[in-house]
Amino acid sequence: MNDPSKMASYYFQILLTSLGMNDSTSPKFTLIVSCRDAVGIVAAVAGFVSEHNGSLIESNHHTDSTEGWFFMRNVIDASKMSIDVEAFRAQFSSIAQAFEMKWYVRDHRFSQKVIILVSRASHCLSDLLYRWKSGDLPCDIPCVISNHENLRSMVEWHGIPFHHVPVPKNQKEEAFARTLEIIKRHQAESIVLARYMQILPDELCQQYPGRLINIHHSFLPSFVGADPYKKAFDRGVKLIGATCHYVTKDLDEGPIIEQDVIRVGHYCDKTEMVRRGRDVERAVLSRGLLYHLQDRVIVQGNKTIVFD
Amino acid sequence: MNDPSKMASYYFQILLTSLGMNDSTSPKFTLIVSCRDAVGIVAAVAGFVSEHNGSLIESNHHTDSTEGWFFMRNVIDASKMSIDVEAFRAQFSSIAQAFEMKWYVRDHRFSQKVIILVSRASHCLSDLLYRWKSGDLPCDIPCVISNHENLRSMVEWHGIPFHHVPVPKNQKEEAFARTLEIIKRHQAESIVLARYMQILPDELCQQYPGRLINIHHSFLPSFVGADPYKKAFDRGVKLIGATCHYVTKDLDEGPIIEQDVIRVGHYCDKTEMVRRGRDVERAVLSRGLLYHLQDRVIVQGNKTIVFD
Amino acid sequence: MNDPSKMASYYFQILLTSLGMNDSTSPKFTLIVSCRDAVGIVAAVAGFVSEHNGSLIESNHHTDSTEGWFFMRNVIDASKMSIDVEAFRAQFSSIAQAFEMKWYVRDHRFSQKVIILVSRASHCLSDLLYRWKSGDLPCDIPCVISNHENLRSMVEWHGIPFHHVPVPKNQKEEAFARTLEIIKRHQAESIVLARYMQILPDELCQQYPGRLINIHHSFLPSFVGADPYKKAFDRGVKLIGATCHYVTKDLDEGPIIEQDVIRVGHYCDKTEMVRRGRDVERAVLSRGLLYHLQDRVIVQGNKTIVFD
Amino acid sequence: MNDPSKMASYYFQILLTSLGMNDSTSPKFTLIVSCRDAVGIVAAVAGFVSEHNGSLIESNHHTDSTEGWFFMRNVIDASKMSIDVEAFRAQFSSIAQAFEMKWYVRDHRFSQKVIILVSRASHCLSDLLYRWKSGDLPCDIPCVISNHENLRSMVEWHGIPFHHVPVPKNQKEEAFARTLEIIKRHQAESIVLARYMQILPDELCQQYPGRLINIHHSFLPSFVGADPYKKAFDRGVKLIGATCHYVTKDLDEGPIIEQDVIRVGHYCDKTEMVRRGRDVERAVLSRGLLYHLQDRVIVQGNKTIVFD
Repeated sequence: MNDPSKMASYYFQILLTSLGMNDSTSPKFTLIVSCRDAVGIVAAVAGFVSEHNGSLIESNHHTDSTEGWFFMRNVIDASKMSIDVEAFRAQFSSIAQAFEMKWYVRDHRFSQKVIILVSRASHCLSDLLYRWKSGDLPCDIPCVISNHENLRSMVEWHGIPFHHVPVPKNQKEEAFARTLEIIKRHQAESIVLARYMQILPDELCQQYPGRLINIHHSFLPSFVGADPYKKAFDRGVKLIGATCHYVTKDLDEGPIIEQDVIRVGHYCDKTEMVRRGRDVERAVLSRGLLYHLQDRVIVQGNKTIVFD
Repeated sequence: MNDPSKMASYYFQILLTSLGMNDSTSPKFTLIVSCRDAVGIVAAVAGFVSEHNGSLIESNHHTDSTEGWFFMRNVIDASKMSIDVEAFRAQFSSIAQAFEMKWYVRDHRFSQKVIILVSRASHCLSDLLYRWKSGDLPCDIPCVISNHENLRSMVEWHGIPFHHVPVPKNQKEEAFARTLEIIKRHQAESIVLARYMQILPDELCQQYPGRLINIHHSFLPSFVGADPYKKAFDRGVKLIGATCHYVTKDLDEGPIIEQDVIRVGHYCDKTEMVRRGRDVERAVLSRGLLYHLQDRVIVQGNKTIVFD
Repeated sequence: MNDPSKMASYYFQILLTSLGMNDSTSPKFTLIVSCRDAVGIVAAVAGFVSEHNGSLIESNHHTDSTEGWFFMRNVIDASKMSIDVEAFRAQFSSIAQAFEMKWYVRDHRFSQKVIILVSRASHCLSDLLYRWKSGDLPCDIPCVISNHENLRSMVEWHGIPFHHVPVPKNQKEEAFARTLEIIKRHQAESIVLARYMQILPDELCQQYPGRLINIHHSFLPSFVGADPYKKAFDRGVKLIGATCHYVTKDLDEGPIIEQDVIRVGHYCDKTEMVRRGRDVERAVLSRGLLYHLQDRVIVQGNKTIVFD
Repeated sequence: MNDPSKMASYYFQILLTSLGMNDSTSPKFTLIVSCRDAVGIVAAVAGFVSEHNGSLIESNHHTDSTEGWFFMRNVIDASKMSIDVEAFRAQFSSIAQAFEMKWYVRDHRFSQKVIILVSRASHCLSDLLYRWKSGDLPCDIPCVISNHENLRSMVEWHGIPFHHVPVPKNQKEEAFARTLEIIKRHQAESIVLARYMQILPDELCQQYPGRLINIHHSFLPSFVGADPYKKAFDRGVKLIGATCHYVTKDLDEGPIIEQDVIRVGHYCDKTEMVRRGRDVERAVLSRGLLYHLQDRVIVQGNKTIVFD
């Protein structure tokens, strides 16, 4: 670190990070589009990008031929582009109108703000924090909110503020109001329920459609509701799983982002199932959240397109 | 094959096979035991085996500590044993009585007789026949029964008789009576429903408890009943699966032997799900049946112990 | 089959199949492109397709940023296109020249001709034939060539001609000349070595670059050369694998298309490893060949892009 | 925690932990045996256990028929046993001598002491510490040793002492002497190299045969030596892996405990391979170490028996 150019680069990174920006050396935009399928969509979008001297780094399409609907994700190298993200947004809108697109464009240099809600169990939270600290989860975490105190030290060790918001049975309304207030104050774009164990009120869920992510500790639709490991043990299944999904007003029924399973057997009592299940829960939540943060997920009705 | 000793060995094998016997060079017994847990079970069993000069090749135990129940599978090298399987059966019974065991012993040289029931779909059947012909499924298949004609040629090419027993809507009773008659005539010990697509009558199921094996084309308990791929498609799951289970009077509710899953996504329409599902169905059925034939499966209530 | 319209459709399919054509109801072209990365490639290609009223059903891109190279696979719904595949080929060439593309376009209705070479082992062959017969491998198989007789009956049962071309140690040259003659006579586009166990002469390999597919019975680059299962057993690995790759003049060194593994352990002797390995060999070869037939594989140096 | 009996139990646990003991409510012994195969081994061992009123909870056997060698792991419920572990050790030795056994017995209530060596990379260490803190790794960690300072805070947050022992190029001998001194002082039974990136001197390795565990960041024997991800990238493999093995004097050649793989492809540059590889490295190391701590691993020559 005695090399002056390295030091300059180092401090520049710190500056960027403090502004919520990632590595600026290669500005990238992500453009997400969905619309009724038609001839010429790709040509129009790719034409727009190349006219402004952008270069497509990644491009994924999907046509739902049953519904006649088209989905597209583009990652654009914007380092030579003549326009910034605001100008892109303004000028692309005429194409978007022509095809009646649902769309958005994001400048990768600005990280999403994600607030994590957690209860007593640490396994999902610790994995998210590890990945965030390693730079593998491209987001800011302005705070963690919990209805218990036991994870404060872990969160604060990562340099992240911790809010204890108890949820007593007869004061849930106030608790969720306070939770929502914290979320709003931090202008969080997405919320992660990392085994939060509380059912959020509908009006909160509906304010964050496609932005409120839950991990359910079963391979949905098997074993909806409480204590899925007990149900799995009683049924004698040979695999258990976990499901990362967007929260809607219908419990455990929202659009599925990611799922995975792990092998169990007669040699597993319920405690061992819970132990094995933790590994698949944390893996599935981390993967689902990463897809979400990289704008790889498009919700279509009660299903998702995931461009992995 | 000009070497006389090789030729002798070759024809001896043919002779053994015609008697329903496997390779006789190393006679093996499998002893399956379950009973209330107690001190001294293993010592008593292992003592009996070694007294008669048997050698334990494989031994698996399981103690269900909740239920206080003990399970054991032993494979015994009987090549130096002083007693044959009949004498084993007679003499072991005093130990069995002392511990109130449920138990059986099988001489590996005699293959189980397995009858396969199939409908129009060939994927599971063709895999079973391939594995049987390769020598990987240690059983005899006296015949295949189908309610359609289309798989006759495939079955007969393998040298196995094929019975066409149609199941018309208004003559199901007669059809199942004829099916049962064929099963009885061949003295089949186990029956495999390799996508048979017909619900067998209760009285038939109850004659073969723990010996009637089905493959269900979903990861149970998800998507019970008809057309699970359609249900999986509609729910937007990211993995589909298959379940091999013993048939009981409750449809899709019997003890699970084996399960597995395969990845799907938005890029799969229902047809593609069916195509991918076929691979997991045939793998799970073959594995489940192999466990069954090797006496690795013990049914306990509505669950299984599988010593894999 | 008494419904006249169904019968007409049925015989029309037979007619198409006899012409080497698949289902004609939705004509599709696949366009494969690779070239130096530049601004405007996607726009140019997508523009060309939409100008001629084609619709992109699938589109995959990859940019190798290290090498500055761009790869693209497009599946085009050609049912409303104003040009056929010949006209497409002629008119697209000006775009191709502008970007100095390596490219080809294929009309899906014409199946590739694939010849399978096999030795004594049946496991890979039987899986390929099952999938071909099920309609899951979109190709014609004009014949199977083997240096042994034992698989003739299996092949002929599928209605495919079988050629026995022995490869005696001191007459290999003649044997391979005859093999090549059969391949040429049938105008085979691709050749599959489904455990052929013979090393083909360089000059044959070089006539089919990127079109000669082998299955190697190890997870390359582990255990190159002969008897990989023995080597795996001796090393005590906990997973064994298989590798599907294009054959080049360097044995086991060609571009890898697909790989997979399966779990083994101390409980597996070499025979059991071979038995387990067969399942992963056949799965990997079938998957690799399917990618190849669907034009999902692009060779780049000694590596592959696989748009799966 | 106001319930006095709960508090008593709680403080009793703290006391036990401070003595290096686990939950005392059900004392368990693990007995590991290997010897030349013979008739009567299981009977003798099981007889001894039942005579002293012990109950077999788990029992795994393996017979290596090629080598004529027998391996056995027993977990014994010792809660009603008339003898403690010292008496067991003394009295069992006559059986052990009769069969010329290599053997040991361990009282589960006393945790193994494990020292972790680490370099700059945190991914394996953080996973081990998370699992240890969750109670899933039954061991004591008296300290972590690193040749860098950057992980001190993470280690100390877990309440574990951190020793910084730099390994400068020209003072390696002193560094390893100091490392060994710390290991000896803490009476560590096992040592884990959690991506330590230094080659330990032979004399240190030979003091801990079967007790020095490494994680190698490739699927051995592929890509031995330095920078396996670069080699994997250059070869174009479709899966990358990790290997947990005991360290011997031959680098990357020791007995393999556990391996696993993860899918990669053309879409992964070397950085992405490293990122994906981290997940499989930490999973494989944690699993391998758990097998080791539960006495599930027996070394036989350059291979392992793992009773998982």
